[in-house]
Amino acid sequence: MKLFSYFRSSAAFRVRIALNLKGLSPPTEFVHLRRGEQSGSAYLAQNPQGLVPALTLEDGTVLGQSLAIMEYLDEVQPLPRLLPTDPPGRARVRSLAMLCACDIHPLQNLRVLNRLREAHKLDEQTANGWAAHWNEVGLKAYEDSITGNRHTGTCSHGDQPTIADACLIPQVFSAQRFKVDLSRYPTVMRVHEHCMKLPAFERAQPTRQPDAEP
Amino acid sequence: MKLFSYFRSSAAFRVRIALNLKGLSPPTEFVHLRRGEQSGSAYLAQNPQGLVPALTLEDGTVLGQSLAIMEYLDEVQPLPRLLPTDPPGRARVRSLAMLCACDIHPLQNLRVLNRLREAHKLDEQTANGWAAHWNEVGLKAYEDSITGNRHTGTCSHGDQPTIADACLIPQVFSAQRFKVDLSRYPTVMRVHEHCMKLPAFERAQPTRQPDAEP
Repeated sequence: MKLFSYFRSSAAFRVRIALNLKGLSPPTEFVHLRRGEQSGSAYLAQNPQGLVPALTLEDGTVLGQSLAIMEYLDEVQPLPRLLPTDPPGRARVRSLAMLCACDIHPLQNLRVLNRLREAHKLDEQTANGWAAHWNEVGLKAYEDSITGNRHTGTCSHGDQPTIADACLIPQVFSAQRFKVDLSRYPTVMRVHEHCMKLPAFERAQPTRQPDAEP
Repeated sequence: MKLFSYFRSSAAFRVRIALNLKGLSPPTEFVHLRRGEQSGSAYLAQNPQGLVPALTLEDGTVLGQSLAIMEYLDEVQPLPRLLPTDPPGRARVRSLAMLCACDIHPLQNLRVLNRLREAHKLDEQTANGWAAHWNEVGLKAYEDSITGNRHTGTCSHGDQPTIADACLIPQVFSAQRFKVDLSRYPTVMRVHEHCMKLPAFERAQPTRQPDAEP
């Protein structure tokens, strides 16, 4: 296995959490998103999706998409589990993960903010406001989905971290960058604080990566 | 089981395909997205994510997120399979599905186009251009991921439909609405034409739904 990562990518952050939870530390190649290395021919030849993260699989293929990578890790090395074993529980965890991965993160990542600024002439503040808006809508939906739900524990689902937490915690980091008032999501923040005490999450955060920049 | 659907929702279209492939036809409640019913208190009380589709599960909970629903269906009724059995194959299929579900669809759905028009004053043509752009970027990535790949068959992965095809075909419908030149993606269109000959796909399309409007 080899991981393609970038310190500030939320999606790479998810996979770093999952790898840490599994006790895996594959060699990592850094792809500098702000320099556009993900769109260079060398990277595209390996991952035609042109995004980070990616993982080289056992058969040599390069796999994109953070959730597909986490599901793969859970299939090839089942313990500790990143998903519960009961189908409704697995469905709930995937639904929470995808709330972050489909409905928040894609709307506020680097390429989308670049497009808003460059093609549609949004100024920096307005583009950041766009990003904050989708974080707010999504984190409210996440909060309402876990608050008072009998399956919520110290983590989003029970007391063991799952792919839902691996998606939520990087999203909270993003929301902080866009100056979202996180006090409105107390259950989300309780889970966040719990997870960030776990080494697998703490060591995965952007500032702790070898390619981190100020 | 009960499905919450809207004829024009690409994400609901995916789940309709999956249900048809499984030979399931649960009762359906229609949620009118253009009238904002997904944001009404009655719907939010059932699905706090406030999006369509959703599926009522065996334990009474209402599950959001089309991919989580399709994975659930594949776990509780394994045949015919919507995912291959080998982990690298499952990973490839999920990665293709998520390319549509994370990197194309969320950027061009109704709520995002509404936000661009209402909060950022993009005119209709410019907003549609935004939607076309992300369809083009994503479908090129999909095309480059399946063209010449030894795992591609008459479908995106082998010759049996998977969740990748259940995501791709509704995305092609969206791209057509935004007037994307689809001749640039010949492998995508070959898969699309094959799938649309299958009753499970044909019957799931927007115009064939009871709530369809002109």
